[in-house]
Amino acid sequence: MKKLFCLVCLSLGIAAAAQNSRYVDPFIGTSGMGHTFPGACYPFGAIQLSPDTDTIPHNIAGKYQPRAYDYCAGYRYDDPTIVGFSHRHLSGTGHSDLGDILLMPVTGQPKLHPGTAQDPDKGYRSRFTHDGEEASPGYYAVTLSDYGIRARLTCTPRVGVHEYSYPEDEVQNVVLDLGHGIYNYDGKVLWSTLRVENDTLITGFRLTNGWSRTNYTYFAVSFSKPILEYGYQDRKDNPYRGFWRRFDMSRNFPDMAGRDMAAWFSFAPGEPLTVKVAISAVDALGALKNLSAEGCGSFDEIAMHTRRAWDAHLDRFRAEGSDGQKRMFYTSLYHTLINPSVYMDVDGQYRGIDGNIHRADGFTNYTVFSLWDTYRAEHPFLGLFFPSENADMIRSMVEHSHQSPLGMLPVWSLMGSEGWCMSGYHAVPVLADAIVKGTYNDDGQALEAMVKTSRVGLYDGLDEYMSLGYVPYDKRATAASTTLEYAYDDWTISAAAAALGREDIAKDYSRRAFNYRNVFDTKIGFARPRYADGSFKTPFDVSQTFGEGFIEGNSWNFSFHVPHDVNGLIALMGGEKVFRTRLEDLFAMDLDPKYYEENEDIEKECLIGGYVHGNEPSHHIPYLFAWTTRPWMTQYWTREIMNRMYRPEREGLGGNDDCGQMSAWYIFTAMGFYPVCPGTDQYVLGAPYLPEISVKLPNGNTLTIRAPKVSDRNRYVRSLKINGIQIKRAYVTQAEILAGGLWEYEMSASPNKALKPEKPFSMSK
Amino acid sequence: MKKLFCLVCLSLGIAAAAQNSRYVDPFIGTSGMGHTFPGACYPFGAIQLSPDTDTIPHNIAGKYQPRAYDYCAGYRYDDPTIVGFSHRHLSGTGHSDLGDILLMPVTGQPKLHPGTAQDPDKGYRSRFTHDGEEASPGYYAVTLSDYGIRARLTCTPRVGVHEYSYPEDEVQNVVLDLGHGIYNYDGKVLWSTLRVENDTLITGFRLTNGWSRTNYTYFAVSFSKPILEYGYQDRKDNPYRGFWRRFDMSRNFPDMAGRDMAAWFSFAPGEPLTVKVAISAVDALGALKNLSAEGCGSFDEIAMHTRRAWDAHLDRFRAEGSDGQKRMFYTSLYHTLINPSVYMDVDGQYRGIDGNIHRADGFTNYTVFSLWDTYRAEHPFLGLFFPSENADMIRSMVEHSHQSPLGMLPVWSLMGSEGWCMSGYHAVPVLADAIVKGTYNDDGQALEAMVKTSRVGLYDGLDEYMSLGYVPYDKRATAASTTLEYAYDDWTISAAAAALGREDIAKDYSRRAFNYRNVFDTKIGFARPRYADGSFKTPFDVSQTFGEGFIEGNSWNFSFHVPHDVNGLIALMGGEKVFRTRLEDLFAMDLDPKYYEENEDIEKECLIGGYVHGNEPSHHIPYLFAWTTRPWMTQYWTREIMNRMYRPEREGLGGNDDCGQMSAWYIFTAMGFYPVCPGTDQYVLGAPYLPEISVKLPNGNTLTIRAPKVSDRNRYVRSLKINGIQIKRAYVTQAEILAGGLWEYEMSASPNKALKPEKPFSMSK
Repeated sequence: MKKLFCLVCLSLGIAAAAQNSRYVDPFIGTSGMGHTFPGACYPFGAIQLSPDTDTIPHNIAGKYQPRAYDYCAGYRYDDPTIVGFSHRHLSGTGHSDLGDILLMPVTGQPKLHPGTAQDPDKGYRSRFTHDGEEASPGYYAVTLSDYGIRARLTCTPRVGVHEYSYPEDEVQNVVLDLGHGIYNYDGKVLWSTLRVENDTLITGFRLTNGWSRTNYTYFAVSFSKPILEYGYQDRKDNPYRGFWRRFDMSRNFPDMAGRDMAAWFSFAPGEPLTVKVAISAVDALGALKNLSAEGCGSFDEIAMHTRRAWDAHLDRFRAEGSDGQKRMFYTSLYHTLINPSVYMDVDGQYRGIDGNIHRADGFTNYTVFSLWDTYRAEHPFLGLFFPSENADMIRSMVEHSHQSPLGMLPVWSLMGSEGWCMSGYHAVPVLADAIVKGTYNDDGQALEAMVKTSRVGLYDGLDEYMSLGYVPYDKRATAASTTLEYAYDDWTISAAAAALGREDIAKDYSRRAFNYRNVFDTKIGFARPRYADGSFKTPFDVSQTFGEGFIEGNSWNFSFHVPHDVNGLIALMGGEKVFRTRLEDLFAMDLDPKYYEENEDIEKECLIGGYVHGNEPSHHIPYLFAWTTRPWMTQYWTREIMNRMYRPEREGLGGNDDCGQMSAWYIFTAMGFYPVCPGTDQYVLGAPYLPEISVKLPNGNTLTIRAPKVSDRNRYVRSLKINGIQIKRAYVTQAEILAGGLWEYEMSASPNKALKPEKPFSMSK
Repeated sequence: MKKLFCLVCLSLGIAAAAQNSRYVDPFIGTSGMGHTFPGACYPFGAIQLSPDTDTIPHNIAGKYQPRAYDYCAGYRYDDPTIVGFSHRHLSGTGHSDLGDILLMPVTGQPKLHPGTAQDPDKGYRSRFTHDGEEASPGYYAVTLSDYGIRARLTCTPRVGVHEYSYPEDEVQNVVLDLGHGIYNYDGKVLWSTLRVENDTLITGFRLTNGWSRTNYTYFAVSFSKPILEYGYQDRKDNPYRGFWRRFDMSRNFPDMAGRDMAAWFSFAPGEPLTVKVAISAVDALGALKNLSAEGCGSFDEIAMHTRRAWDAHLDRFRAEGSDGQKRMFYTSLYHTLINPSVYMDVDGQYRGIDGNIHRADGFTNYTVFSLWDTYRAEHPFLGLFFPSENADMIRSMVEHSHQSPLGMLPVWSLMGSEGWCMSGYHAVPVLADAIVKGTYNDDGQALEAMVKTSRVGLYDGLDEYMSLGYVPYDKRATAASTTLEYAYDDWTISAAAAALGREDIAKDYSRRAFNYRNVFDTKIGFARPRYADGSFKTPFDVSQTFGEGFIEGNSWNFSFHVPHDVNGLIALMGGEKVFRTRLEDLFAMDLDPKYYEENEDIEKECLIGGYVHGNEPSHHIPYLFAWTTRPWMTQYWTREIMNRMYRPEREGLGGNDDCGQMSAWYIFTAMGFYPVCPGTDQYVLGAPYLPEISVKLPNGNTLTIRAPKVSDRNRYVRSLKINGIQIKRAYVTQAEILAGGLWEYEMSASPNKALKPEKPFSMSK
């Protein structure tokens, strides 16, 4: 196993050449709204080893803590202290969990409490500055000022590697805080155990009840030098503990456990201490297998291997542009390749959502499916450029449905648990998109799971949706948006069924796909929540995000959420002119601050008129001009969004990256096309953002997109030639992209109004 | 698998004839001090399915609750209500845990709180009376007055079977309380999950942190009719729960979890509901395997099979005597066969104390090793009459040592955890006894584990014991008794090593065996705790149990704890006369009530002079007369203890049964011999208690012990002939017992003072 990993790394090394890792800046998004983390990770790896600067729970003593939202990824660039380095982080989410297995190197008598940012000296945390702080793919380094310790981090898919250089002559201590976690409410850590197996190896386990309802983390930790002494403290008491106090179990006793436990380990002064931490959701033996399979080599060897693995992914793309543009492009690419994450040991064993141990037969099992976000662009992106990984993700979702007592595909899968976060059943469009595009070879199980999922009556208003044709507002607070989402998801089932020759299913779900009409109030031309008796909610404010029947979006934005039947939507709204004007107004309006001031999700600088790029329901909207008489408006507004919502700065992201969804939008848009309606094989054309992008496609072909004169001024497309042939469509197809070759764009400072491109797919003609 | 179990039962059935089950009264010990439970269990089975009448934790809001001690087995005969029926119970312990997976049948709207004994109507618990309450091996039945429900319980080794007969026309409800437990302090239940797999099958898991530090209980529940409706409540809140409230998960949602969860299930009125509950410590699949392997058959078929299994064990013995004597004899026998308990799935998988899953290769894995108690008589008893089970228990202990990060044999093994309860390393004498007697075939691993265990310096004063020759009182509150225990344990290592030809080890440990002398104050003739500087504790009270350096015994009793060198002890005390007088005084003294009034472990009626039979350190003492000039005093006092400490009544046990130790003492003493010094092949002779006992030995021989004239008056032995040959020894050997045949006792009302029997083994001559 050991050999295998090194060989893999070697072969990746051979492929590396451009070394686009150098353009990636993991700090982008670590301030402001991005919720990204700067630490070390591996493409789609199980480990995200990163510093936590604080971990505020949502509720402290029953009171809502507004800053909790900031700490979804554990790290805030502006914070003055680091609590320690923990092994798992979500990339860009809007809610929090993980922060599992925290290590912190310290000198002096180890304190077994973290202390506070205000008074770090009370605990083991340390002040730090950004001098000498470094982050790049698979690598992070920082100096902990209070201890004079230089900490460097890297990782393999399943092993986090720490290198701590202590001041000379100082005894080297490490704190392992098993009570630490992100969004760490009292009681989140259910249990933890720790065993000292020998003087360089410890194993352990912890179980948490967080956003991941039942999260098993087994681990194995290997130290590069012998433990001299160790000890622990359980910060929660236990009436049985008397037995365990019969002799001193707080020091050098190799069998530790507790509900809120921190341990310390001492090592001899001198050369740096290297610590390798393997994790598993299966058992400690699984962690040990992962450690021995992937933990070979020195810190620098592993860091180099992992950087090469990143380069092997990033170098598939070659982007030209300014330094800032390249940093933003490759950082976005990097962010698309973190989640979903491997959730499986090297031997193929993984913990299913039934809590049982399964063996992945012929695929890699993944978790972290933020599907409400990622069905839009992240999965289409992976399906196009990393289809093998995407197919395994889909296979993981199908297996999830087999393990689900409801037979459901994941809604928000997190560490072997179903989190039920957000709305819809958006695994369905992910599967449908891959089936339609031929990147997932369904033996019928996927379609069956899709159908089954869409018929689970007890799920989120689905019973009423099936009987009434919409989710009634008396039943659900987000009834209108959920209906829109179900209708689209249903259309994708019909598309997949058609592709698989199941006309019966296709017909059935084509009908359901029109359900979006049932929450559309043609009198006002907006989607509007409706009660079970058929009446619409009154009063009703189309600009209000909260309490008006929508989720993460107001009716203004969400009314456009009919990607599968834009023509039908246009008709409902009152014709092309109304529709187009509505689109134009959305970007141009002056939104009353009362609509976003109280919303932790939206800041003023993240708005373009009433368009909120940070909230995913808007993502396809700028491309809807393709169905109007002014398709060039897409070219205008997408560049505007790129410039304003994606700045290569720490606070440069205009919203949560949401497990790569925001970044996948960026990459697509930079290439000039976007999957407005996953489940078709079409990508709606915008305009290229950079003068040249070249991508090595998974079939071996290379696609080069050239727009030599593109600039903020020359943002309009005069013409596009694909391999010499002029394109008169507002879309390209999967086949055209995969055919590769040369796309030549002529750009200009004014739109080509003469071009009347063929409109993209719509159910209604 | 299914077939296998039924065949096993069938073959057991063939062997059954005497049906001694009918003499067993599981209510004996359920009041007073016995701490036994009345519910259904299988010989050495994993399930003890029994009613819990209350489950008081030791601490409520930080205050010690004296009645907690009463509820070690969950049931008190005098209680007015039953909370429900849970699946695992300890038999006769003095500390509490388990009570796992509680079911309660109810009618009407199910309440999801237990309510209180004072106000049962507030919760799901029910009043009950003893009218119609029945208990016999493998069977329990009771009528729940509040609901008019008749509940019957039986079990297989790994499956609990409930049959609930509801009033006609009533909807049949069952409450499953995963928050219930014995000694259920707030936080003991760490986590629980529950899945409805289909309309007759549920699976689940709970993790507790009790006396068993990390106790995994997976379960699978099969209902005899379809679930109509169900629901649950988690009585502890969680800040993430908002997600789970997005749609109603409290009813008919098949994926439940929580830190303090109770669920209810409804079934159609009509025929009785049968519920089969299989448990596993491995995973839910393990529970399902156990269910399908053992869960076949109707309630009555399973109850009959299990009764036959009990008869197959109990019928090995045939005892004559009064009805009360027979009830006491067979109930004692029954109590010796409950713990240790199987801790392994039908496929051989089990959870080790390292938390990992292991496969038992060629043995059955056991847990519940209350070794401080059971090394004395319970394990010698099992080794003599059930050697195959005892050998597997020993093998389980050896595997435990391999899984222990200290390499230690169990101290108090409970459900895959080391409980560190009590003192000494008394797995060692259990192993030694079986090695010396040839009932465990050691390949060297057992001896290695014994030696390793005795050298774990950080364990309970062992470092100091090894350097000073005693545990110093400045280090440990029970320094004197622990030293006495270590010295004896060490002697058994030397005996086992000698038997295995390891003279080097034997010599080493022979030296350590004399360490008992180091805590003996020859000035006062008593064992006495000593400080590290060599001085004795002053002041010192030989009658005080607490705070004087001993555990569960005062110096008066504990000073006799030198079973391996009684002659040496006699010399230390000042010669035979002093020693004998001391023994006589112990039984005859009038102990000042101040010495036991505050002790929850001792009640006045459990005292014979200063002798406390309920505390194990005394158990061998009545047999020590064999080393004196008045061996017949053993004959007098053992009968006295039998009569007074073992009455066939609910409150008839003179102390905690302690996992069969008290009962094994009874059986041995009833047969007229006792293993004063496990590790020798000798049993010290007392006097037979019954006119005839016959036992079918594991080698096929039959031993019949006849004392036709025995009575309280004729309690003295005039002569013993073994197969016609007069015995002039104060002991018999393992070989003599196993040879079987006829032992003929002549009894009389006065001792045979002329007989000067050869004294039993002692290190010093």
